[in-house]
Amino acid sequence: MTDVTTQQTAHPTTTDTASTKQPEPAGNVEQAVHAVADRARTASRLIARANRAHKDKALQAIGEALVARRDVILRANEVDLEAGEANGTSKALLDRLSLTEERIAGLAAALENLAGLPDPVGTVARGQTLPNGVRLRQVHVPLGVVAAIYEARPNVTVDIAGLALKSGNAVILRGGSAAANTNAALLGIIRDALDRTGLPADAVQTVDEYGREGANVLMKARGRVDVLIPRGGHDLIQTVVTNAAVPVIETGEGNVHIYLDEGADEEMAVEILLNAKTQRPSVCNTVETLLVHKDAQAAPAVLKALAEAGVRIHADPRIQEVLPSGVSAETANDDDWAREYMDLDIAVAMVDSVDDALEHIRTWSSGHTEAIITNNLARSEQFIAGVDSAAVIVNASTRFTDGGELGLGAEVGISTQKMHARGPMGLRELTTTKWIIQGDGHIRR
Amino acid sequence: MTDVTTQQTAHPTTTDTASTKQPEPAGNVEQAVHAVADRARTASRLIARANRAHKDKALQAIGEALVARRDVILRANEVDLEAGEANGTSKALLDRLSLTEERIAGLAAALENLAGLPDPVGTVARGQTLPNGVRLRQVHVPLGVVAAIYEARPNVTVDIAGLALKSGNAVILRGGSAAANTNAALLGIIRDALDRTGLPADAVQTVDEYGREGANVLMKARGRVDVLIPRGGHDLIQTVVTNAAVPVIETGEGNVHIYLDEGADEEMAVEILLNAKTQRPSVCNTVETLLVHKDAQAAPAVLKALAEAGVRIHADPRIQEVLPSGVSAETANDDDWAREYMDLDIAVAMVDSVDDALEHIRTWSSGHTEAIITNNLARSEQFIAGVDSAAVIVNASTRFTDGGELGLGAEVGISTQKMHARGPMGLRELTTTKWIIQGDGHIRR
Repeated sequence: MTDVTTQQTAHPTTTDTASTKQPEPAGNVEQAVHAVADRARTASRLIARANRAHKDKALQAIGEALVARRDVILRANEVDLEAGEANGTSKALLDRLSLTEERIAGLAAALENLAGLPDPVGTVARGQTLPNGVRLRQVHVPLGVVAAIYEARPNVTVDIAGLALKSGNAVILRGGSAAANTNAALLGIIRDALDRTGLPADAVQTVDEYGREGANVLMKARGRVDVLIPRGGHDLIQTVVTNAAVPVIETGEGNVHIYLDEGADEEMAVEILLNAKTQRPSVCNTVETLLVHKDAQAAPAVLKALAEAGVRIHADPRIQEVLPSGVSAETANDDDWAREYMDLDIAVAMVDSVDDALEHIRTWSSGHTEAIITNNLARSEQFIAGVDSAAVIVNASTRFTDGGELGLGAEVGISTQKMHARGPMGLRELTTTKWIIQGDGHIRR
Repeated sequence: MTDVTTQQTAHPTTTDTASTKQPEPAGNVEQAVHAVADRARTASRLIARANRAHKDKALQAIGEALVARRDVILRANEVDLEAGEANGTSKALLDRLSLTEERIAGLAAALENLAGLPDPVGTVARGQTLPNGVRLRQVHVPLGVVAAIYEARPNVTVDIAGLALKSGNAVILRGGSAAANTNAALLGIIRDALDRTGLPADAVQTVDEYGREGANVLMKARGRVDVLIPRGGHDLIQTVVTNAAVPVIETGEGNVHIYLDEGADEEMAVEILLNAKTQRPSVCNTVETLLVHKDAQAAPAVLKALAEAGVRIHADPRIQEVLPSGVSAETANDDDWAREYMDLDIAVAMVDSVDDALEHIRTWSSGHTEAIITNNLARSEQFIAGVDSAAVIVNASTRFTDGGELGLGAEVGISTQKMHARGPMGLRELTTTKWIIQGDGHIRR
């Protein structure tokens, strides 16, 4: 097999068993990316009809191959990491880019978990026999060709490939160039494992070699790409959403609010805020703004606990006035209300009512998750009805907006749009449906 | 009340009870359309929380008002028809534009039917109590602000307004300019009836007065418009799909195929083809191409019956050779395979197998509906699995791809895309979902 670690740039993945593509001449990027998509379409027809046992076997084979060939992956990763260091990439980004034996084992375990989940393909969404005797079923079928554009996180390569395969789709990947060598190594191993299990290697392809221009062509490939999923930060998602001509599922931005009501239990409020802010500050279901009712008795304890946990508080003037002794805060402005800190920072504002809290949320929320901590039934109902976000939470941590926590098994991402999927997306959200209508010569009267 | 029939152009709808908008200065179209959308957003919050009884009362009030004020509508319609005739508009288009007492009664009856349908809002899609005791519900909620761009069919104005209201959404309409006076009259009556039943008149608005520029602003209004539904012919839909920056649901194009298998029952084949082609040739679920297996015994009888029913046959060379005596055919080319005739025309090709039929369908289909007429189980299964369209039909007329026929009640349109909704769209498809997560101080471990 070709040792992909020797590739200094992201060439097409080649193995001795999978298809051998030639790099296309520059200027023909559109043609080349369309050719990738057309191969994906052909592969999608085969993978769509593969049964669950077959797909699960492939997922396990991929996981085993990743572990068995971890040295190849780690060497490729080392090349990317060295290039990143030389370019002055930040420590945080280098950490995201970095793979270890343990992380590779984690990828394999995730694939094993995926193999254990039910197959969404073939599930009957609804069905009936009509009064005239026509039999009707609405059945889940794969979307077809899924594309993903993401940043330099090599785990997403394996993650999205696995999710796409399990749901019977072909996938076209476009990862960040900083992870090009790692992704090429992963792709080679994945395609090889597919081939060995009798599934088309072209069910998983990359357009990394075509750079930004390739990504642009992918975004415009109407009819060739059935759905495009951006995974990454605000800028990446906005670029994709604004430029794409193919259907997009917007994921992940989380400007998450907690409203602390009058009369809320102090201990509960402290526990929830600490969990929602400090357990994993860099993820999208972390709370970013706390809205405090003017008479919320639990507020001082909550602010104190956050400060003691090392959280920097950005407070509006009314909160500044009631800060408990020993707690300091910076002055919050509109930037703070708008911002996803993704760090140990929280914006805090005082409000006069649930209505005021809802108004603040309507103005600033990204539509991901909002929570209320309360002991009042009417106000909890008012909050549930008034929030227009993917998830609304009563008396629990915002960290529960997560596919795994909500029992969806694997998670494709958290959709913050209203079309197709909203909130944590499981495998089912990578399918569409088809109506199957069976008669015995029925005609319409 | 203002007599809207005196308006020679599509001015803002004004009634003495609904809001009174002033026409915006030219050049401020973007600002004006955004203001319409912002009023729609405010109205959407009220209509989203209106209960079913209230919404049904409003639908009935609209229907009654349309009938009671039919003279106003018919006078406005007369102005549009006269302008159309003066402009040399075709008879077919004038017929679509034309309203009669009977058609107005039909619109009222459709609203009455809508009032009788269950409310999709509040339906629980799924739910469970998690192992840790957290209660989870995924509930259907309105999309928010729905926009519709359509051609000069005034019935769509009432139709879409009713569907949007029943599903708890505010709607922004952009109808064809040829129906501007009729639409203004309808809008005035609808808004007035909303106001009288205590629902916000701004739940139904138009941007007709801002012309093409207004339509363009609407298509780009990300964050202000939650979903845009184009209703009309190929060109309208392609314009919207290509230019829109807001989420779009593509509807209605139907290049529909029937595959006539070897061994299919002759009588069944004749009945289905006649029904699928001649019952209502101008609609999207009408068959446009017949694919005939080379040994299909039913073929001569089918071709003869179609010809006798006045259907013009466009045949490939192999079909030309086996035409029954007395049946003539034009020569078909790629234009015929691609085309939606929407008239008494059918393209006919001979194929050697189900695979060949599937290949033809993959190449030319718009993804609406494909049918097989067969008595062979394996081939019917092969066809069902191989077709990638919204509906696949066995031994029944393609005319069954219809919301009413499939028991969905009202129909928003027939989606030919894979995201969000595929096939006939009912009221449920005008909703999104919201996860409601309830705990008792739960935090994530």
